[in-house]
Amino acid sequence: MRIAVDGMGGDNAPAVVVEGVAEALKRLPGVQIALVGNEKAMLPFLKKFHIAKNPQLTVVHTEQVVNMDDPSVAAIRSKKDSSITVAATLVSEGKADAVVSAGHTGAAVTATKIRMKMLPGVDRPAIAIIMPATQGPFILLDAGANIDCKPMHLAQFAVMGEAFARLAFSTLRPRIGLLSVGEEDVKGNDLTKETFKILSDMPLNFIGNVEGNTLFNKAADVVVCDGFVGNVLLKATEGMARASMYWLKEALSKNPIRKTGAILMKSAFRELKEIGDAEEYGGARLLGVNGICVIGHGSSSPRAIRNAIRVAEESVKFGINKNITEAIAEAGISAG
Amino acid sequence: MRIAVDGMGGDNAPAVVVEGVAEALKRLPGVQIALVGNEKAMLPFLKKFHIAKNPQLTVVHTEQVVNMDDPSVAAIRSKKDSSITVAATLVSEGKADAVVSAGHTGAAVTATKIRMKMLPGVDRPAIAIIMPATQGPFILLDAGANIDCKPMHLAQFAVMGEAFARLAFSTLRPRIGLLSVGEEDVKGNDLTKETFKILSDMPLNFIGNVEGNTLFNKAADVVVCDGFVGNVLLKATEGMARASMYWLKEALSKNPIRKTGAILMKSAFRELKEIGDAEEYGGARLLGVNGICVIGHGSSSPRAIRNAIRVAEESVKFGINKNITEAIAEAGISAG
Repeated sequence: MRIAVDGMGGDNAPAVVVEGVAEALKRLPGVQIALVGNEKAMLPFLKKFHIAKNPQLTVVHTEQVVNMDDPSVAAIRSKKDSSITVAATLVSEGKADAVVSAGHTGAAVTATKIRMKMLPGVDRPAIAIIMPATQGPFILLDAGANIDCKPMHLAQFAVMGEAFARLAFSTLRPRIGLLSVGEEDVKGNDLTKETFKILSDMPLNFIGNVEGNTLFNKAADVVVCDGFVGNVLLKATEGMARASMYWLKEALSKNPIRKTGAILMKSAFRELKEIGDAEEYGGARLLGVNGICVIGHGSSSPRAIRNAIRVAEESVKFGINKNITEAIAEAGISAG
Repeated sequence: MRIAVDGMGGDNAPAVVVEGVAEALKRLPGVQIALVGNEKAMLPFLKKFHIAKNPQLTVVHTEQVVNMDDPSVAAIRSKKDSSITVAATLVSEGKADAVVSAGHTGAAVTATKIRMKMLPGVDRPAIAIIMPATQGPFILLDAGANIDCKPMHLAQFAVMGEAFARLAFSTLRPRIGLLSVGEEDVKGNDLTKETFKILSDMPLNFIGNVEGNTLFNKAADVVVCDGFVGNVLLKATEGMARASMYWLKEALSKNPIRKTGAILMKSAFRELKEIGDAEEYGGARLLGVNGICVIGHGSSSPRAIRNAIRVAEESVKFGINKNITEAIAEAGISAG
C-alpha cells in the first residue's frame, strides 16, 4: 500500500507534516509513503526526523503550493504542479492508493474531483467527520465540501454516510437523520423539506429530522446536512469545547481549595480532553471521489498527520468505495 | 408598565408559567401582569402560588391554545382566541407594553407579526439571543424566526442587532460579523456572499465574515445569520454543553481520589454551569415587530419565565424599537 502525503499542506508545513510522516512510518511498517512537495524545503526536516533515507519513503518534488487564501478552483487550474494536485494525480494514475492533506480544504476537494474523478452515480463529494456523542460517536456529512447543495446531493450524502457507518460502527442498519430545526417533516428550510421527501422513499433506515440539541446524545448514526451548515456546526462545537475548557480552568484556579481539587483530578481532565479530540479521529474522509482522500485540519499537529495517514490506510483496507458505489446504484438516485 | 404573559405557552404550562409569574410579581413591584390563558386551568396554580388576588395581576381568559406540533401560520389564522394571539393583541391595542411566551416559537412570531405589525422599514422579525463567549457575551441573530432568508433580510438583522448591542453592551460601535465558513469575502454560500457586499456598503462597523471556531472568543459583538443556521447553532452548542457536563461527571466519578477532588470543586462546577445558563439570560428578544416580544424556551422553568418577564420590562424601558426604527431609516435598506 502506498499513501501520497501533501507535504506542503497546513499552517506549519512542511515541518509538522514531515514529523507526522516520520511517526507514521514507525507505526505502519507495511505502508509506503510518497511525500509530495518542495524537496529543498522538506530536506532539513527529513534529516531532522531521520527519514531522509527511509526505504518506506519516496519524495516527489513539486514547485508550487496552494496558499490558504487562494480561491480553490482557480488555484487548481493554474497551479498544475502544486503538491495537492500532484498527490491526487499519483492516485489517479494508480501510483498511490490514497492521498492525505492538511492544506486548503477547497483545493483538496477540487484537485481530487478533477484528478481522481467521482465514483459512478455520485455528483458531489462530501466531507464526513466522526463526532463524539454521549452514547458513542456519529458521522456528520457534509462538513464543508459543498456550500450550496440540492436535495439530491443530500440524498447521495445519506447513502455514502450509511456505507461509511456500516464499516465504521459495524452496524447493519445505521440510523440516518436529517439535520433540521424541528422534528416534524414540515419543519426546516426548502432544502431540508425536499430532502425529507426523497429520503423517506429510499431504502434507508431514515429516522427523520434531528435537531442540534439531541445530536450529542447520538440521535442518529449518520447526520446529513449541506456543507455550509455542517462546517458552521463543526467549527462552532470546536470553539464551544475550547471555550468550555477555558472556563473550567478559570473556575478551578480561583482559590487554593479548588486548585487542590484540580490536582486530584488531573487525569480526569486529560480523559475529558481526549473525548473531543479531533486529532485522535485523524481527519475527515472525503467520500464520493474515486480513491481515498483524507483531509486534516490546517492546524494539524504531527500526531494529527500521523493519525490521518492511519485513517487513510484503514480506508484503503475497508474498501469503502466499493460499498458506496453499490449502495448508490441500488438507491438509484444519481442526479445525473 | 404592563406585560402580557402567555399562560398556556410551554411544555409545562400553565403550572410553570404561573409559578414564574408569581416570582416576577415579587421582584418587579412596578410591573402589572396580564396573564392570558384558560382561567379554569390556571386557577389551581394561581391559588397554589398565592397570586389569585394579587393587585398587580389581571387574568385574561382565552379558550384556545396553540399546540407545539401545530403549523404556526395555520394555527394563528384558525385559533383567533388562542392565548398567544390574545396576548399580542393586548400590545397592539395599547393595553400592554410587551408580550412574553414560552410556547410555540413560530406561533409567537406569526401572532406578533400579524397583530403588532412590523416596525417601519423592517420586513422580517429576527430572534436575537445573547450567548456567552470567553471575552464577554455576544448577540446572535436570527436564531430561528426566518428559515429561508434573502440578503436584504440579513442586512436588516445586522442593523437591528447593532441597535440591540449598543443598549445591551453599552458600546457605541458594536462589531458586526457575518457567520460564514471562511474569513475571506469569497468564502460562503450565495446568501452570505451577497450579504457581505451589502453590509460592506452600509454605515456599520462591519468586520467581515466570522467562523464558528472564533465565535466563542467574542470574534464580534453581533453575529448575523439566517434563522436555519442560527437555530442549528444555538441548539447544537446547547447540546454540546450538556454532553460536556455529562462527560465531566462521568470522568469525575471513576475513582475515590477524583470524587474527593470533585467535592473540593463543587462551587466551581456551579459557576461553570451558570456561564452557559440560558435561563439566566431570560429568553430571546424578537426584534423588528412593533412592540416588545420575549420568547422563552419550551422547557422554561419558573426561573426562566421570571427572567423573561424581567427582560421584557428592561426592553420596554430601553426603548429599543425607537433605536431600531431610526437605524433602519438611516441605513435606507428597506426591502420593501
